[in-house]
Amino acid sequence: MIIVSKSNPLVKELASLKEKKYRARRGVFLVEGEKMVRECVQSKINVLRAIVREDYLGETYGLDTVVLGKDAFAAVCDEKTPQGIAAEAEIPVTALRSPESPCLLLDGVSDPANVGAIVRTAVAAGYRDLYLIGCADPFAPKSVRASMSGVFFANIMQGSREEVLSALGNVPLIAADMNGENVFSFRAPARFALCIGNEGNGLSPEVHSRAAYTVRIPMDARTESLNAAVSAGILMYQLKNTVLSL
Amino acid sequence: MIIVSKSNPLVKELASLKEKKYRARRGVFLVEGEKMVRECVQSKINVLRAIVREDYLGETYGLDTVVLGKDAFAAVCDEKTPQGIAAEAEIPVTALRSPESPCLLLDGVSDPANVGAIVRTAVAAGYRDLYLIGCADPFAPKSVRASMSGVFFANIMQGSREEVLSALGNVPLIAADMNGENVFSFRAPARFALCIGNEGNGLSPEVHSRAAYTVRIPMDARTESLNAAVSAGILMYQLKNTVLSL
Repeated sequence: MIIVSKSNPLVKELASLKEKKYRARRGVFLVEGEKMVRECVQSKINVLRAIVREDYLGETYGLDTVVLGKDAFAAVCDEKTPQGIAAEAEIPVTALRSPESPCLLLDGVSDPANVGAIVRTAVAAGYRDLYLIGCADPFAPKSVRASMSGVFFANIMQGSREEVLSALGNVPLIAADMNGENVFSFRAPARFALCIGNEGNGLSPEVHSRAAYTVRIPMDARTESLNAAVSAGILMYQLKNTVLSL
Repeated sequence: MIIVSKSNPLVKELASLKEKKYRARRGVFLVEGEKMVRECVQSKINVLRAIVREDYLGETYGLDTVVLGKDAFAAVCDEKTPQGIAAEAEIPVTALRSPESPCLLLDGVSDPANVGAIVRTAVAAGYRDLYLIGCADPFAPKSVRASMSGVFFANIMQGSREEVLSALGNVPLIAADMNGENVFSFRAPARFALCIGNEGNGLSPEVHSRAAYTVRIPMDARTESLNAAVSAGILMYQLKNTVLSL
């Protein structure tokens, strides 16, 4: 059976997953596109069903499959030019615990594309454990897309500032800060949590005051800052490199 | 006089600057927001006039100023929630010439936000000369915004693949490539051009075959690639760092 109406209850339910409150209420999120769905199926994530457009001829991985007409499928997807498949999947919940090192603490990163790109880099650079305080939802469509499947593989832990700092225990925090030490002459300790703050305002005073070290990326005087995902990437790789070369 | 109509010829002319062909035809682009306009005025860029919303009370830097009603101003701006000022400015043209080192060659980077973020990082990291072949327009609104004023300060040179490679002369090209040498154990030569390719397809065969060196960012096996702006940032800083520490 092909569901063609955009006002069909199931279509409306799937489309509602663009909003955080509906994702949170049901504990599920939407994965869009052939490559992302394939990688989601191959990951630890529990995939509940496939949603395909009526003209889709590709793989559905033995999943329960809902077939939608063109307009209904477009209404469900966040992408402007969606491929013919999406999947509904359970949001993986990792309970707060002490970290594997190195790990990452994101403190108020507000742009979902930045959160996603940082998760993507973190998985690539071997930062498995990510602690998020008051960030954009990593399971928002823009973040999932920017993470390029990274959200399927990272251990994403979320909590209040107090809860996260408590879980990090005595792991030294390294804060990204314009006034810190040049990261290219800094040697990271064997264990650490790299802390990345809000795009405009940086780290919260609570996290900053707990930092054992502060590091900066040297910059031309005409530049005030780098894109949050770019600077997180430079810091993640440089800090890890200094530890590995010890 | 306040122009209120969105169909006023001047309003339509300014709004047309969202499209590349109109920017190219007139050799001008639009700068949006208080901070960006201030930094543009302070740069080498020739600013032609300010465009302000009727409720704007801030600085206009002695520029000829056009005052628009709320709807007309929103129609001119690309930003969804524009601040009350924009400026029309001349696109700075840098004729193709041999580079200061280090420099950057962008070969088919297609996302304007990536082009902008790369320009932002390049200025910060001291890569003044940027050569663009078949990239998204760096003076598109999304690129200007992502560059955070970087496009006002960089020397952006554009040309065909042949023209750009000819201008680079015998400067060694370093290509970003998944199969290259680990950039963290690589030592860059004193002069080089770092080459960054298309988001999906990497470098063109013509540029790749000219590369004296290829370097990669080491990655977890589950990751195929990084965001283009993130990997460009990591490479720019790491390569420069190896030269400076020689």
